[in-house]
Amino acid sequence: MLINCDLGEGFGAWTMGPDAALLPLLDLANIACGFHAGDAHIMRATVAAAKRHGVRIGAHVGYPDLAGFGRRALPSSAEEVIDWTLYQWGALGGIARQQHVMPEYIKPHGALYHRLHQDIPTLEQWCQALKALPDRPALMLMAGPAGAQARACAEAHGFFVIAEAFADRSYEGSGQLRPRHLPNAVLADGQAMQAQVRSLQLGSLTVDGGQDIEIKAQTLCVHSDSAGAFDMASRLRAILET
Amino acid sequence: MLINCDLGEGFGAWTMGPDAALLPLLDLANIACGFHAGDAHIMRATVAAAKRHGVRIGAHVGYPDLAGFGRRALPSSAEEVIDWTLYQWGALGGIARQQHVMPEYIKPHGALYHRLHQDIPTLEQWCQALKALPDRPALMLMAGPAGAQARACAEAHGFFVIAEAFADRSYEGSGQLRPRHLPNAVLADGQAMQAQVRSLQLGSLTVDGGQDIEIKAQTLCVHSDSAGAFDMASRLRAILET
Amino acid sequence: MLINCDLGEGFGAWTMGPDAALLPLLDLANIACGFHAGDAHIMRATVAAAKRHGVRIGAHVGYPDLAGFGRRALPSSAEEVIDWTLYQWGALGGIARQQHVMPEYIKPHGALYHRLHQDIPTLEQWCQALKALPDRPALMLMAGPAGAQARACAEAHGFFVIAEAFADRSYEGSGQLRPRHLPNAVLADGQAMQAQVRSLQLGSLTVDGGQDIEIKAQTLCVHSDSAGAFDMASRLRAILET
Amino acid sequence: MLINCDLGEGFGAWTMGPDAALLPLLDLANIACGFHAGDAHIMRATVAAAKRHGVRIGAHVGYPDLAGFGRRALPSSAEEVIDWTLYQWGALGGIARQQHVMPEYIKPHGALYHRLHQDIPTLEQWCQALKALPDRPALMLMAGPAGAQARACAEAHGFFVIAEAFADRSYEGSGQLRPRHLPNAVLADGQAMQAQVRSLQLGSLTVDGGQDIEIKAQTLCVHSDSAGAFDMASRLRAILET
Repeated sequence: MLINCDLGEGFGAWTMGPDAALLPLLDLANIACGFHAGDAHIMRATVAAAKRHGVRIGAHVGYPDLAGFGRRALPSSAEEVIDWTLYQWGALGGIARQQHVMPEYIKPHGALYHRLHQDIPTLEQWCQALKALPDRPALMLMAGPAGAQARACAEAHGFFVIAEAFADRSYEGSGQLRPRHLPNAVLADGQAMQAQVRSLQLGSLTVDGGQDIEIKAQTLCVHSDSAGAFDMASRLRAILET
Repeated sequence: MLINCDLGEGFGAWTMGPDAALLPLLDLANIACGFHAGDAHIMRATVAAAKRHGVRIGAHVGYPDLAGFGRRALPSSAEEVIDWTLYQWGALGGIARQQHVMPEYIKPHGALYHRLHQDIPTLEQWCQALKALPDRPALMLMAGPAGAQARACAEAHGFFVIAEAFADRSYEGSGQLRPRHLPNAVLADGQAMQAQVRSLQLGSLTVDGGQDIEIKAQTLCVHSDSAGAFDMASRLRAILET
Repeated sequence: MLINCDLGEGFGAWTMGPDAALLPLLDLANIACGFHAGDAHIMRATVAAAKRHGVRIGAHVGYPDLAGFGRRALPSSAEEVIDWTLYQWGALGGIARQQHVMPEYIKPHGALYHRLHQDIPTLEQWCQALKALPDRPALMLMAGPAGAQARACAEAHGFFVIAEAFADRSYEGSGQLRPRHLPNAVLADGQAMQAQVRSLQLGSLTVDGGQDIEIKAQTLCVHSDSAGAFDMASRLRAILET
Repeated sequence: MLINCDLGEGFGAWTMGPDAALLPLLDLANIACGFHAGDAHIMRATVAAAKRHGVRIGAHVGYPDLAGFGRRALPSSAEEVIDWTLYQWGALGGIARQQHVMPEYIKPHGALYHRLHQDIPTLEQWCQALKALPDRPALMLMAGPAGAQARACAEAHGFFVIAEAFADRSYEGSGQLRPRHLPNAVLADGQAMQAQVRSLQLGSLTVDGGQDIEIKAQTLCVHSDSAGAFDMASRLRAILET
């Protein structure tokens, strides 16, 4: 399984996340494209650093909302979401291709990630539009039951889907992550995380209450903006390599 | 000679220029890329309209300065100018390629246009960086003596240069446009414009004082944000077709 | 009854509405404060022009959303709405007081206008916070049944309310404006508008179906960004003065 | 002597500087007003925190340039600088007055700070405009010979000037700070800083080469965005209190 992580989430003079330390631990870097975070300089430097470390890159596309870090559900039509996605995908491509690197996938960010998993008609139009791209990206979407509808839609349109799971978060029976304000939402320790990763490697998880849910993931997500991102990524790398 | 014009210079709810009326008269549309004007939706609609009319498109790249419409000389390094250019070139490409259209050239806008004609070391670095693009754009630069150094630099790096002249503006002996605050900066009437176009078609202009300057242009520029842009473009089209 | 109108809705190089022509016809100018439209220069010029014409001014406060012109319902807490309002009210005040003019009222704009009429808990907190201002503004809110709850809340907190009605729009029995996509949403002609104004002057309207609704308004709104804003304002002024 | 420090320099999800730790050590908080850093929420929280600690506040006004953190010299007229200043001064005032706190002074930030010390005609117009404010702010400007012309201009217009010096930076004979890229630009240790503060308390400094320059400062500046800001402020507070 591959480790993916959001990178390049600074803006101008502001920084976020220990990008330089994280990079050697990653397989896939989701690079912010200037809408919710990042700017052209940070993008260029992040692409260059990813290239040096042999880390593959994708466009982390968000709502145009620096002030809200892409976490606000910006009321918008499917058309607008498509335009914003094409713009960001293209922008990262311009910067990357100049370095002879190709972005390989799109991962929606924040409120847009949630929307594209829940608002299937918008996802439908979005896939319809994106598949016209000559350099068609893969799509990183949620593994397990919570992302089933979205993945099916993307695959029906011919996209390669990179299903992602979370190594350090509890899942509900629905396949959704347990909300952070509930107890045990975040796994308590490295042992619990290791157990979850082993289970994910086999393609299913036993959730609270004893129910088994199928989660076939190609990638595990590390949040660069959490405290302890580096430790989490290091531990995850160690687990995956043993 | 081709007619080029800046299009898509609205932003959100704001509009600028009679784009729809102008398009049938144009050969080349310089499309704003969201930095000094334009946004993803306007870009997409402008690309679609240009495609319908068979108008070729280029990226009109500017400083990241919506509030100043790209007319302020933003202090910035050559690196920053490169990053901003790659980002905008890529963004337009993302939107255009989805419509199976390829942007063919870059025209710098406003204060960036001036800078890249005057600050040759920055132009040098800019060309050096841009030529690494697999989809290398042509560059639209000023025709005549005032653009000679810039065009030479671009050509030395292997770029195809589209040299542009102005049909309705007086030239100085230096090859610069006469500043707008001086008398006769703008040609008085259609007859004067026709005479200038005929002269430009032959590759030289006689300026005030009788001096001849060589101006070999592939394209003539119409400013969409001037009053009378449509009349000017119509007249120009008529002159070129007779 | 006073005529109010949104002014100063340009941004940078972009303009919107025939402000200069409208001003002599107005009593109250709702000045955009840089969040959904306007910038410091436009604000300063608009305040100066209003002062010359003896037009009283208020802060037209919106969501921080230039790209959406304040028409998108930006997900946000009551706290955020309060902060944005204080900021904009203060900013206009800084510009106006330097000209020895005082903004007298706040009119929420666009999606924020709708929210503050519907989301009464947020309105409640908003009023609670705003009444701590030493230079307490009046609040412009909707006249008639559709604004009854909001006006009551504002008045309970001690605000002076300026109730506004619309001279050229049909009302529903609920007191809401008939949505623009429905037939007869906009009054057909000057005669219909005159009849509505006369009725509003008496404090009630007979809506389709024959129902009478009470609408006691202190001001009538002219939208500067509609086509025909100047004609509408002129006709309204004429009606009010005869 | 008072300690002043720039606070509230985050933006949205991004933070900068250990504001909470610094506040108890300060006398004057220069609060970013949303143009180069800060937003309405950060401003409101910073004002509230300053109030709790009895720290007086001023508006840290900058160029409208979040992407450049106000460090780029944005080409602009004196009129524009005035408008931007009034807007920011007013915005902070709106937020502060709601908490029954009054901003007392203006400190220009970054590139605007430099400009107003060097471009005296702009400073002249700026003072002329600002003195029309009913709530006339004091102005924080550079102490010593490097700020002499600016302070004289401000005082001639009747402003109270708060002259600021730097405890941890070497001065040149001109009264300018030694540029950071030169050796010994930053004082090596606490002892050197203490010596400089003692000297500043007496109103003069002996610079390299032995020359004495007069520097009468009312306040010492701590940069919140430097590494070690908290240690520097703590040491400074200790020096001032013994």
